[in-house]
Amino acid sequence: MQSYAKSRIKILYRQICLHNILYQFAILSVKNNEDILFLKALGQKIKKIRTEKGYTQAQLSADLGMEISQISRIERGVVNTSVLNLKKIASLLNVSIKDLFGSL
Amino acid sequence: MQSYAKSRIKILYRQICLHNILYQFAILSVKNNEDILFLKALGQKIKKIRTEKGYTQAQLSADLGMEISQISRIERGVVNTSVLNLKKIASLLNVSIKDLFGSL
Repeated sequence: MQSYAKSRIKILYRQICLHNILYQFAILSVKNNEDILFLKALGQKIKKIRTEKGYTQAQLSADLGMEISQISRIERGVVNTSVLNLKKIASLLNVSIKDLFGSL
Repeated sequence: MQSYAKSRIKILYRQICLHNILYQFAILSVKNNEDILFLKALGQKIKKIRTEKGYTQAQLSADLGMEISQISRIERGVVNTSVLNLKKIASLLNVSIKDLFGSL
């Protein structure tokens, strides 16, 4: 029974790895490298401002009415978010939308 | 036959009017007034920069590989576009993405 569980976990782990590879490939296929770097820099700037202002992702999520996973994806730069989402984040963090772009 | 055609046109016209009203209502229901004004100001700024640089919507559309109707919707502020679309537009117009936001 224990070895059965182990083999199930192994299969599951492989499936997750494969899923991740396919997911990364899907991202890469629609965005070029410059876009990926841009979204990453934007996400890092948002995270920097959020932590400086003492906000957690959970607080931001609750105040914005946005899924916490969505906030996380924006900060990791893996999602091409909308301009109104950026405006909402900027308003809540009490900065201008331009500030989110830092030196971009 | 002529009066039949007239009545068909009348019905079609009414359907278009109704469709437009429902469409406007759909837009209003998902965006609040502040968001609408924000998108309109952003669109106007993009249009201003584009015309100053001597670009037509058709040229922008061709160079960006984006539908001309999409460019038009962004400039009219009726669409909540993505940050990568704004980056593309800014790059092509040779300005910083921050410049698109003007005094927003």
